[in-house]
Amino acid sequence: MARGRFITFEGGEGAGKSTQIRRLAERLSAAGHDVVVTREPGGSPGAETIRDLLVNGATDRWSATTEALLMYAARRDHLERTIRPAIERGATVLCDRFADSTRAYQGAGGQLSLESIAALEGFALDAADWPDLTLIFDLPVADGLNRAALRGGGEARFEAKGLAFHERLRAGFLAIAEREPQRCAVIDAAAEMDAVTEAVWAAVSLRLGLA
Amino acid sequence: MARGRFITFEGGEGAGKSTQIRRLAERLSAAGHDVVVTREPGGSPGAETIRDLLVNGATDRWSATTEALLMYAARRDHLERTIRPAIERGATVLCDRFADSTRAYQGAGGQLSLESIAALEGFALDAADWPDLTLIFDLPVADGLNRAALRGGGEARFEAKGLAFHERLRAGFLAIAEREPQRCAVIDAAAEMDAVTEAVWAAVSLRLGLA
Repeated sequence: MARGRFITFEGGEGAGKSTQIRRLAERLSAAGHDVVVTREPGGSPGAETIRDLLVNGATDRWSATTEALLMYAARRDHLERTIRPAIERGATVLCDRFADSTRAYQGAGGQLSLESIAALEGFALDAADWPDLTLIFDLPVADGLNRAALRGGGEARFEAKGLAFHERLRAGFLAIAEREPQRCAVIDAAAEMDAVTEAVWAAVSLRLGLA
Repeated sequence: MARGRFITFEGGEGAGKSTQIRRLAERLSAAGHDVVVTREPGGSPGAETIRDLLVNGATDRWSATTEALLMYAARRDHLERTIRPAIERGATVLCDRFADSTRAYQGAGGQLSLESIAALEGFALDAADWPDLTLIFDLPVADGLNRAALRGGGEARFEAKGLAFHERLRAGFLAIAEREPQRCAVIDAAAEMDAVTEAVWAAVSLRLGLA
């Protein structure tokens, strides 16, 4: 059985990732692919218990350093129990957030250095764990926060972190795309929904040859 | 105000650390010291919520890698909220388990390399966070597990990990003491309880000049 594909979806709050992941999953499933849709933090029973500690409570409940450690604990469990087994059996895994979110949220947003986060990545991830393709959903911060507020629920602890935080976050994601253009594609998430769907499909079919 | 002292107590299950910490705390308090007694995993409200994930459930609930990340998330919160503030105000902090437990449990016991754990230590700890003195309580594995079983409660998930694990654990702790003799003192925890109390006191008064 050929190794599957690992596609991650990154970006700030209210970027419309969930809708687009669902649409891509439908299109790939209709084309006969074995598709696994998952998300972080969470995605395995153990990681979901850690998620509860991360997305709820006061914004200063954890420092950026503690938060990065909790994120990586959840990520490692998710990898071992969900992502790696799915990819090994040949599935296409679509994951809402992954390692780049730690770089952006706790790094650029929380002001940890990328060098220190790299130590954590080295501890928790093998080289083969990095995504085959990462789609970075980009839109103006105010638009994203408005959409997230309208949507409700979600990751309230992070949404409450203030505009300067979210501006650093956006810049952090764009810097990742610039540093790793082979792995990353920036998607204009401010566009009309169907246009975003087509941009996602173009990136996936072009870069991974999936159809 | 002079910086306080940080003393950690390490060793396998059933080594009698809790009793000896209580006795040392009484002696130091009677001598006029500001003493803070704490323990890991836990020791701050956030770290206690992480502790619940670590000490309960099936022995294979987490891999050694995930476990080390959760331990360090709890440790970092405990440091920021409890240990550092106490030491800064001049207190003597007595802590049941600290970084050496990750080296022994997830490293020697769980077979993670000390090099990979060092990456985690570098991410989460400053040089000044290491203890002034670490007392390593050593006793034969069978004796410790018997005592832990009689005591009940405690860290059931780790106690259930089997004899070979606990033998690696003991060897791991002794190897730490051998590598860092300035920081560490080995205490013969198989001795009679009052003799252990005197050995602890001798190490503390000799090494730290506390009386």
